[in-house]
Amino acid sequence: MKRKIMTTLLLISYATMSEVWAMPDASPPTVSFNIDHIWVLLSAALVFFMQAGFKAFEVGMVRAEHGNAVAIKNLIDWIIGSLIFLFIGFGIMFGKSSYGLIGTDLFFGIGVQDNPEGSGLGTIFFLFQIAFATTALTIVSGAMSERTGFIPYMTASAIVAVVIYPVFGHWVWGNLFYEDNPAWLADLGFIDFAGSTVVHSIGAWVGLVGIWIIGPRLGRFDSHGNPKEFKPANYSYSVLGLLILWLGWWGFNGGSQLALDGAVGDIILNTNIAGAAAGLVAFFHCYWFQNRKDLYPKFLGGIIGGLVAITACCANVNHFGALAVGLTAGLVHNYGYDLILYKLKLDDPVGAIPVHGFCGVWGTLCVALFGQLGPETSRLTQLGIQALGVSVAFVFTITVSYVMFTLLKKTIGLRVSPDEEKYGIIIGGEANMGEEEEEMEMSEEELLQLMK
Amino acid sequence: MKRKIMTTLLLISYATMSEVWAMPDASPPTVSFNIDHIWVLLSAALVFFMQAGFKAFEVGMVRAEHGNAVAIKNLIDWIIGSLIFLFIGFGIMFGKSSYGLIGTDLFFGIGVQDNPEGSGLGTIFFLFQIAFATTALTIVSGAMSERTGFIPYMTASAIVAVVIYPVFGHWVWGNLFYEDNPAWLADLGFIDFAGSTVVHSIGAWVGLVGIWIIGPRLGRFDSHGNPKEFKPANYSYSVLGLLILWLGWWGFNGGSQLALDGAVGDIILNTNIAGAAAGLVAFFHCYWFQNRKDLYPKFLGGIIGGLVAITACCANVNHFGALAVGLTAGLVHNYGYDLILYKLKLDDPVGAIPVHGFCGVWGTLCVALFGQLGPETSRLTQLGIQALGVSVAFVFTITVSYVMFTLLKKTIGLRVSPDEEKYGIIIGGEANMGEEEEEMEMSEEELLQLMK
Amino acid sequence: MKRKIMTTLLLISYATMSEVWAMPDASPPTVSFNIDHIWVLLSAALVFFMQAGFKAFEVGMVRAEHGNAVAIKNLIDWIIGSLIFLFIGFGIMFGKSSYGLIGTDLFFGIGVQDNPEGSGLGTIFFLFQIAFATTALTIVSGAMSERTGFIPYMTASAIVAVVIYPVFGHWVWGNLFYEDNPAWLADLGFIDFAGSTVVHSIGAWVGLVGIWIIGPRLGRFDSHGNPKEFKPANYSYSVLGLLILWLGWWGFNGGSQLALDGAVGDIILNTNIAGAAAGLVAFFHCYWFQNRKDLYPKFLGGIIGGLVAITACCANVNHFGALAVGLTAGLVHNYGYDLILYKLKLDDPVGAIPVHGFCGVWGTLCVALFGQLGPETSRLTQLGIQALGVSVAFVFTITVSYVMFTLLKKTIGLRVSPDEEKYGIIIGGEANMGEEEEEMEMSEEELLQLMK
Repeated sequence: MKRKIMTTLLLISYATMSEVWAMPDASPPTVSFNIDHIWVLLSAALVFFMQAGFKAFEVGMVRAEHGNAVAIKNLIDWIIGSLIFLFIGFGIMFGKSSYGLIGTDLFFGIGVQDNPEGSGLGTIFFLFQIAFATTALTIVSGAMSERTGFIPYMTASAIVAVVIYPVFGHWVWGNLFYEDNPAWLADLGFIDFAGSTVVHSIGAWVGLVGIWIIGPRLGRFDSHGNPKEFKPANYSYSVLGLLILWLGWWGFNGGSQLALDGAVGDIILNTNIAGAAAGLVAFFHCYWFQNRKDLYPKFLGGIIGGLVAITACCANVNHFGALAVGLTAGLVHNYGYDLILYKLKLDDPVGAIPVHGFCGVWGTLCVALFGQLGPETSRLTQLGIQALGVSVAFVFTITVSYVMFTLLKKTIGLRVSPDEEKYGIIIGGEANMGEEEEEMEMSEEELLQLMK
Repeated sequence: MKRKIMTTLLLISYATMSEVWAMPDASPPTVSFNIDHIWVLLSAALVFFMQAGFKAFEVGMVRAEHGNAVAIKNLIDWIIGSLIFLFIGFGIMFGKSSYGLIGTDLFFGIGVQDNPEGSGLGTIFFLFQIAFATTALTIVSGAMSERTGFIPYMTASAIVAVVIYPVFGHWVWGNLFYEDNPAWLADLGFIDFAGSTVVHSIGAWVGLVGIWIIGPRLGRFDSHGNPKEFKPANYSYSVLGLLILWLGWWGFNGGSQLALDGAVGDIILNTNIAGAAAGLVAFFHCYWFQNRKDLYPKFLGGIIGGLVAITACCANVNHFGALAVGLTAGLVHNYGYDLILYKLKLDDPVGAIPVHGFCGVWGTLCVALFGQLGPETSRLTQLGIQALGVSVAFVFTITVSYVMFTLLKKTIGLRVSPDEEKYGIIIGGEANMGEEEEEMEMSEEELLQLMK
Repeated sequence: MKRKIMTTLLLISYATMSEVWAMPDASPPTVSFNIDHIWVLLSAALVFFMQAGFKAFEVGMVRAEHGNAVAIKNLIDWIIGSLIFLFIGFGIMFGKSSYGLIGTDLFFGIGVQDNPEGSGLGTIFFLFQIAFATTALTIVSGAMSERTGFIPYMTASAIVAVVIYPVFGHWVWGNLFYEDNPAWLADLGFIDFAGSTVVHSIGAWVGLVGIWIIGPRLGRFDSHGNPKEFKPANYSYSVLGLLILWLGWWGFNGGSQLALDGAVGDIILNTNIAGAAAGLVAFFHCYWFQNRKDLYPKFLGGIIGGLVAITACCANVNHFGALAVGLTAGLVHNYGYDLILYKLKLDDPVGAIPVHGFCGVWGTLCVALFGQLGPETSRLTQLGIQALGVSVAFVFTITVSYVMFTLLKKTIGLRVSPDEEKYGIIIGGEANMGEEEEEMEMSEEELLQLMK
């Protein structure tokens, strides 16, 4: 019966859609394709590949039995996020602005080929931005891993892709496609070159609200509120993920120039310097000043924190500035890590908040602290503008996320069952895994004993 | 003694070959290298990288103890396949045609630099095609994993690289290098842009015959013919492989344009849309209509199925067409999966047949169903042509593969020992692994008990 | 208190550095960016990605409990190596030469944008060379894995990055940046296109001295001096690493052309041929002539050996020459493997010495044996020059490494505790891992029993 309905629906849509899908794409303005196009296209590929990096990083950092669910969630995140952003979010972020608040055209990919004006990037810019948007989503998935249900998570992901990310993005980057769009934060002078705030902090603040509302994983904190050791599956696999992410950052920052010119090499060099310097500081700061506690996650997180921080300012600092950004970002990360885990007692399994949130903020401020500014802008003025942008991002994201997660919690619920948390989330449950599930039930007591 | 013979042979060959290897390569026609060249070169790199994707995907899908053998087989596949295709297969596929049946020059890489005419791609086209050919081989390896012997497998692989793949390829793409070559299926109007049929289905049909002749893995089906659960090693590792494959597809489809022009962005966007849409449908179709049974493999397979399907038609549908191709491919995959496993009771450990076979066929038909056709071609006519091409591929591949596997079975045998199947194939056997092997024998009884 | 000091230091440095980091980068000579620039930039990205390849390869080859430490070391290697080479090593290698011995400017990245003359590569060349330098370091880390302490290892790494690699590099490639620099080995006619000797052998010889001075892993050889089986964690993961390395080699060799011209396709094709041929020979030579002993490591090592060997000569052999280089390199690798392990009884867990050392030497000699030489150079003369270069590399590296490791051994010590060797090195020790450590101590006896 169900099948008949589906078949009928398919046939009807085929008939009615008739030639819609065969319509030739609007031909792009005649442009001579050059190295700018291929550079942005390959940067889009590198940013897409960061999905694999996040996947491996997160799977390595969560407990072994949760690896499969984390990976599957990452994948569905990319799938849903990319489709939704492609069909709706992109228009909200880059479309013709309505009062500077949201974009109002370019939906369903219609019209994306005509711009950005003169560049002829068209679909390539579109691909690049889709890859960017899904990066923000993946950050949320990491923070909330090991206890969030699949359907509520996916719903949240879709809302981020259609509301939170593109609306704030419109305020900063809304003039990238239509040059004459207002973008009020950019118009004030707010600079976030490749998205320390627009991409990374946004993702982190959604995650922050998420882990606050859903609460820690079962048994993460003892009765005194001290964290108990949850063994990460495999640090070495996280290192693989980190190196893929780093590679992706060549495209993330380098591609944001939207051209291959003399600046790209410096942007990538700055990216490398900041990542390396932040990792170095995070490592030795933890080694010498923090009793080597959580040394591996701080080292790995510190590196990514440095990459996040330089993202905003990679195009307006020189090598020494990049070094300064990296060195300080390493410290910001380590203190932020302790703040989240030991002071606020929030459970962020992959360390997403200190990395993408705090280092994202720091990097955005570094634009004013270390960057080359216009001749008439004082560092203090710029610092104020940067702080404003960062605050707007925080308040806006926190507010919308709070409403979103609260509603989800009260309706479909956010959390998986305690059993699933202990033995690993299996999306789709028993039927998915067949007999294996039985084995798991049999060994439950045994596992419980082991966990005592 | 053996060593002396080898040394002597080496010295003789060095002497006789004298300056052969130092001969300068025939200088390519003077061309100005441009973004087309670098795009196809990088696409070749991406397609080569798909080897890593297949490797990780397959290792994650087979049982843990078979991971090493699967990985080693993948590697030797690439090595043997690439050398054989490079020296012989390429000539058969793209060489000067003999009665439209097979190509007859360009062997040993001689002459590959002179064409395709005017483009100056030369060696870069050669590299791209080598990477393509080995993709087809890898599909076979996945389907037959966990029970096929190493030497028979390698022999089959070599035959596919020298006969099956390039001969059928000659009929469709034989005019890519020499424009005036006849390519009878292409000449009839058969369209397979980047190889849903030429690469993917061919690989799948060889695998289909292979798993039919070699039979299922020991214990895969119970006495009633129902499949028993064989636990995949690590879905999250398969997700890594899938993401690498997806990245590779940017080059697989985008590079098949053999230029970087305005179409490439749309081709890649279509690829992304179809993969995402197919995954979405495969997931929720299984979740809501198939009792969530085999949810993970259907989700992963569905995504790849969507990517396979769009491969034939990515250059002649628009975004809506790509969406339609993807949505339907997800269904094709799920029904195909059940058909193979539950109806035909064939044992395809990595799900290669529904993905590369059925979705390959579907995608090739979608050229007619959803694609933009020439002004004088009706959808029905084109559908007939597409169906003809698909059928020829099926019949030709099935026939040759049947002869090949039957001969291999009757001569050197196809299958490893039951012990190797149970405890993991170790290519080269005991000597390879040293003492470890002994441990394994010791624990055999224990393992048997566990398996009861 | 510590924190106050740090804060004060940071504030002081911020004040004094004032505008240093905001100084605009010296503007590069006005160049029109073209495909040469993007090709070398992407090659740099591919070479950087080799870090992930080495990581995965090594983690798969060591015992499972050492995977995390190996991965973390690889990462810190890249971080420290890239920073040090960036700020100091690059200047020593490519700076204005002092008597042909060492370079004397270009430190801290100052001036790197002005050259190589005419090419406008500037920072892109810089990025490419940084990625190269860290490759050499990683080789050392592999050879010495599973027993070297973290601080001594890092110190050694820094010394290699600042002394050994750039000084020898200056003698061969010192004229790449300033064309009129003397580079005495290059001036003699020594050819090492992409670094079989300059990168690979240098890394291997440092590692050779390292494993000789530090000695084998505990229990690696029995009382008769025969190696005992140490189970590699996961060959299939090493295969992933190998495929990433292979992909990286497209950039390693192809990018060394420093342009995208007609030679690049052939260079990459040669690279593929040699890797494949060497793997084939290593496999079947071991299979048929060496009792299949150590088949997997020989196969994997043979492939990488072929890639290492072709590195020196990929630009001056044709396809047949590449085949000859690969076929012979496979044999060199297998005999070298046995020499190191069974004759010299040196413990090289990942097989770095035969791969990067012996095959590096062989490939450098192959320039004379199989390459196309100038009209007035006899093969024998060239062979002499190549042998000289190879010998200088060996003697220089061995000498400096010997002094370095001896001093390190006598001061801070090279080796971790026996406990760490047995149960896996945890950098930062107990504090890093929290309670987990306790568990480990509890299960120690159990583990010991298992190991009997």
